[in-house]
Amino acid sequence: MQDRTAIIDTAHALADAARDAILPHFRTRLGTDNKLAGGFDPVTEADRAAERAMRDILGQRRPDDAILGEEYGTQPGTSGLTWVLDPIDGTRGFISGTPTWGVLIGVADHSGPVYGLIDQPYIGERFEGGWRRASLTGPRGVKPLAVRDTGDLAQATLMTTFPEVGTTDDAAAFRRVAARVRLTRYGMDCYAYALLALGHVDLVIEAGLQPYDIAAPLAVVQAAGGIVTDWQGGSAASGGRVIAAATPALHRAALDLLNG
Amino acid sequence: MQDRTAIIDTAHALADAARDAILPHFRTRLGTDNKLAGGFDPVTEADRAAERAMRDILGQRRPDDAILGEEYGTQPGTSGLTWVLDPIDGTRGFISGTPTWGVLIGVADHSGPVYGLIDQPYIGERFEGGWRRASLTGPRGVKPLAVRDTGDLAQATLMTTFPEVGTTDDAAAFRRVAARVRLTRYGMDCYAYALLALGHVDLVIEAGLQPYDIAAPLAVVQAAGGIVTDWQGGSAASGGRVIAAATPALHRAALDLLNG
Repeated sequence: MQDRTAIIDTAHALADAARDAILPHFRTRLGTDNKLAGGFDPVTEADRAAERAMRDILGQRRPDDAILGEEYGTQPGTSGLTWVLDPIDGTRGFISGTPTWGVLIGVADHSGPVYGLIDQPYIGERFEGGWRRASLTGPRGVKPLAVRDTGDLAQATLMTTFPEVGTTDDAAAFRRVAARVRLTRYGMDCYAYALLALGHVDLVIEAGLQPYDIAAPLAVVQAAGGIVTDWQGGSAASGGRVIAAATPALHRAALDLLNG
Repeated sequence: MQDRTAIIDTAHALADAARDAILPHFRTRLGTDNKLAGGFDPVTEADRAAERAMRDILGQRRPDDAILGEEYGTQPGTSGLTWVLDPIDGTRGFISGTPTWGVLIGVADHSGPVYGLIDQPYIGERFEGGWRRASLTGPRGVKPLAVRDTGDLAQATLMTTFPEVGTTDDAAAFRRVAARVRLTRYGMDCYAYALLALGHVDLVIEAGLQPYDIAAPLAVVQAAGGIVTDWQGGSAASGGRVIAAATPALHRAALDLLNG
């Protein structure tokens, strides 16, 4: 339990450092690289500076833990714990000036992610969860996070980031679910999982995710009472095609449509 | 000029009142009505309370001006000025808990909208513009607004709210533009126009708008140096199919594709 407190304290220290590293670059006319030739995957100075700042803190405070980060790859450890870092989730939103990008900090053991933190530096909100407790700390204080109890697809709100979702088949599968829900919204990146944990969204369905995209959201949503799996109902920790649901009934109904 | 100052002061008083009326309802489990049978157009108590609060202030301070509001319709005036009010633009985003909904306050004369204010109560940002001056007042102070000088579609960021855009033809026209730009993002409602005025987005293309959806964004974008028209290049003040562009070259190129 002492280690849980130490993990949470360290996660907040990382998030504070990432905020300081990133915010000076937000809504400036910064240059962007193209990480993938032919694709558009901007990596900013902010991204790299934030991951370096987080790795420095981990080097001092948690030298035995492993690290998996978007920008600087894998560093092995001996403790059995891995810090999974995405300094700016939603870089496309970030360079467009939208405020809903986030810093993702996850902690995984052999069983998968056990703690996660989704920080929103510009809005000043911090969603976190692990070990069956989840909360939002924001400008209006601290609030517990809990999914809502929507059981019927026809009453559900669904989110994803891009309407293209992933492959052509992924998009077709997504649309089978979208056709059955009450409301579908786009464009929120990691913020969609935070809203699911907050009880205002019922389903998040995405594809093409990396492990660092999903570790923190997975832990936050699970700690808030939700379900996160891949589209086959297995572990989502390695990324790929992911579904997060507020209730088992919604999860089952959406999986049936995704695989239908 | 004195009247311009009085208009701006009044607009800020309306925005303050709307914030106070709306924020207590944000992210609560409020009930929603269905304004359109068969559609999903939630109208919340917050929407109505905010418009009533704004109309009360106008009744006291600007009794000779006309009002056009989303919730309570048209009230005639004698001054030649009309206040165009959308208390919550982005109600679908609002009920999903996303923070990018806004309060829209426009002032129009015989020539169209001359002043506009886009308020973001939750984030604490206020975008405004008129008479060739535009600014953002936010948690980090006051900043002038100016569009950026992107001239080439291949370098442009495009935003719209829903990938469905409007009719099937509207969506096909939108996709012709989306296929040519660098980046397309969804889901921001009025915030997309604010980001265009801020110089981080180059094109906003929407359809099916009401006059109260576009009056304030139109004035803000124009005051920041951008162009807002309908898809034929005529006035956008009556809503419908709207395009906002950072530069004349982008505007022309996008119009050609929309009508191609």
